[in-house]
Amino acid sequence: MTTQQTSSLLAGLAVMVLLARVLGALARRFGQPSVIGEVIAGIALGPTLFHGVVSDALFPSATRPLLSALAAVGVAVFMFIVGLEWDAALIRGSGAIAPCVSICSILLPFGLGTLLGLHLASAHSHGNRTPFILFMGIAMSITAFPVLARILTDRRMSRTPLGVLALACAAIDDVLAWSLLAAVVAISGSAGPDQWRILLAVPFLLAMLFLVRPLLRRAVERRETPRLTPSLIAFLLAGLLLSGATTEWLGLHYIFGAFLFGVVLPRSGAEQLRTDVHERLGQLSGTLLLPVFFLVAGLQVDLSGVDAAGIGDLGLIMLVAVGGKFLGAFAAARANRMPPRQSAALATLMNTRGLTELIVLNVGLQLGFLDKELYALMVVMAVVTTAMAGPLLTWVLGRNTGDGGKYSSIHRLPATRTSSSGVVSAGQ
Amino acid sequence: MTTQQTSSLLAGLAVMVLLARVLGALARRFGQPSVIGEVIAGIALGPTLFHGVVSDALFPSATRPLLSALAAVGVAVFMFIVGLEWDAALIRGSGAIAPCVSICSILLPFGLGTLLGLHLASAHSHGNRTPFILFMGIAMSITAFPVLARILTDRRMSRTPLGVLALACAAIDDVLAWSLLAAVVAISGSAGPDQWRILLAVPFLLAMLFLVRPLLRRAVERRETPRLTPSLIAFLLAGLLLSGATTEWLGLHYIFGAFLFGVVLPRSGAEQLRTDVHERLGQLSGTLLLPVFFLVAGLQVDLSGVDAAGIGDLGLIMLVAVGGKFLGAFAAARANRMPPRQSAALATLMNTRGLTELIVLNVGLQLGFLDKELYALMVVMAVVTTAMAGPLLTWVLGRNTGDGGKYSSIHRLPATRTSSSGVVSAGQ
Repeated sequence: MTTQQTSSLLAGLAVMVLLARVLGALARRFGQPSVIGEVIAGIALGPTLFHGVVSDALFPSATRPLLSALAAVGVAVFMFIVGLEWDAALIRGSGAIAPCVSICSILLPFGLGTLLGLHLASAHSHGNRTPFILFMGIAMSITAFPVLARILTDRRMSRTPLGVLALACAAIDDVLAWSLLAAVVAISGSAGPDQWRILLAVPFLLAMLFLVRPLLRRAVERRETPRLTPSLIAFLLAGLLLSGATTEWLGLHYIFGAFLFGVVLPRSGAEQLRTDVHERLGQLSGTLLLPVFFLVAGLQVDLSGVDAAGIGDLGLIMLVAVGGKFLGAFAAARANRMPPRQSAALATLMNTRGLTELIVLNVGLQLGFLDKELYALMVVMAVVTTAMAGPLLTWVLGRNTGDGGKYSSIHRLPATRTSSSGVVSAGQ
Repeated sequence: MTTQQTSSLLAGLAVMVLLARVLGALARRFGQPSVIGEVIAGIALGPTLFHGVVSDALFPSATRPLLSALAAVGVAVFMFIVGLEWDAALIRGSGAIAPCVSICSILLPFGLGTLLGLHLASAHSHGNRTPFILFMGIAMSITAFPVLARILTDRRMSRTPLGVLALACAAIDDVLAWSLLAAVVAISGSAGPDQWRILLAVPFLLAMLFLVRPLLRRAVERRETPRLTPSLIAFLLAGLLLSGATTEWLGLHYIFGAFLFGVVLPRSGAEQLRTDVHERLGQLSGTLLLPVFFLVAGLQVDLSGVDAAGIGDLGLIMLVAVGGKFLGAFAAARANRMPPRQSAALATLMNTRGLTELIVLNVGLQLGFLDKELYALMVVMAVVTTAMAGPLLTWVLGRNTGDGGKYSSIHRLPATRTSSSGVVSAGQ
């Protein structure tokens, strides 16, 4: 790195870290998840404003690959933590309703999304159309588990029946959406001549689940109270990076491996450990590395050139994303005899896109599924759907009604704004 | 980044994180500071072994700039923490002896180092000779404050009179050495046409000391008990990065700015905060980012081609480094009427080079003062002088003698190997 590059890299990082924090706090002030502010911070430093002059000065093209490297590490750590939070126990306890709601809340937006993809393909697909269309379907079907968890915690709903159900639905949604995305990445053949490697994905997955998981469980059981020593941090970091490198090498994306490594870590007997990882690893990653991801994501968003056609497309995207997700979840909940209001609340929660969507969109941009124009519109959709969850939920649930029954305890509390620490604050 | 680059970046990071931890722990097992193992891990992954095949496979040239970016952030955080640990109170309490020992322990190796520089210039200086010669002097004069502090803590000597004196000497040494290095970097004119900016270094320094420091102190005083919230982490990160970016822009190196920002942070009333920073920020940085620096440093070390002439040069380097440092400190201590054995112990401690030297050497390599051959030899010197401190100290102090007097309490304890957490374990 030259002196010029080093100094602009460090200054750019400083500006982004600070702006993400300030706008994140501002978002919290308005009862929004901080991720909204952090994503907007990335977009604000991008080419949309001031004809990109600030953007080019702070982030000259020479330093952008360096930012990508920092962002990749941040996203890997984040996906690992999402995997670590993922809990099969959530799903087991929820009965048939969670899988049903979850699958419907994916199927409908996925179907509508592929239709929209067909419509947009002529203008925005520049390569093979099939992966583009499938990707549009997936991008519409995302629910952000971390943001959803944060919204529930903020409203003290995470232990109510509705909250637990929503978490279970989001957990299933997560795995389904990641699997679908992995499948599309795999068939898109972006790996070129090395595409045969994808065949190794199955043995890799099996090895992680039936070899690595039991080994890790036994390792945890042997320790008295597993604590987060520097050695353990190093081990976890190495594990998530290596698992990510493997899936990337297989022709999938590194996010899958990082997520998977989080999933296979033992749950029982390691609660303290998980909290520590969340606090320690999550904190620095959430303050330094993840904002770099928001920056990298935002630097690609150029809204200055959005014309009437673009706004039309955005309208369609919003309609499909919100309509598909909401109706899918609502119908499934109603079919399972949930009261209308609770069904609406659940559907509203499932419509949260958050950081998960942003990661999916960046995978799409990186692999060439999306062009920059469509990417920018989809980012707007992700921000808007995330921002609308809170106010809509307040509106749906009301503030003081209570119609009794199994899901009545959801009314306990409308928006409170406790600010807790950890990746959470930077992770949705 | 391409798929290939991403996967090798993540895999390479994983291997380095793990190897650094393992060799670091191994070093501790042998009563050595973990930094020894971590530096050797970096060298082991470099071109020295296996004709560089492993090195090229794990770290292809395309990912090396990305590693440098991660390393730069790690070094900046590390320098900030060194600055934060730096304590003027240490020096104030130590009387005239500390400045005297410190200055002599710099002057002699500096003088001998410039002579050696004169001798080596024809073979190893490829540009302007003056900065090369001065740099050789500085590189010989380094004492690593963090390693020294760790050795003292390990031997329960950090509160003995000798320990306190050694820390004070190292603290003065730090500031003197950084100032000398900054001066050499400044006069070397590596900034090219922008060299006028260096004139702004003085107002910047004054602003940091007499404007930023009081402001920060007042900010701390207003808070009840300052705790390390994510916002504060973001502020500290932004501050150290921005301060580093400024000195880099001025034509100095970013390490100075990061160090300075640590120095100007308030001491009184913020003890808990400093501990937290050390633990939290230091831990992830020490486990992930700093090992990347050791890797970047090690990837430049090629010992496979060292011939007889090289071994001769290494002998001279060792003689100047160890002889100069030891005799300078010993003579000054004796002149201040310290007993011989204690003087020898102090001189032994001052001979510790550690991570500080490695940072200085990398600055030298980056700015073209050192060629790769000389750089590799100097790294060996840094490792050997750091490794010899512990055993030499045990030998000098003995295990059971006690000749009374002011410094007798140094005999309390020879090597114990408590392993504490935080950057410390990766920071020397």
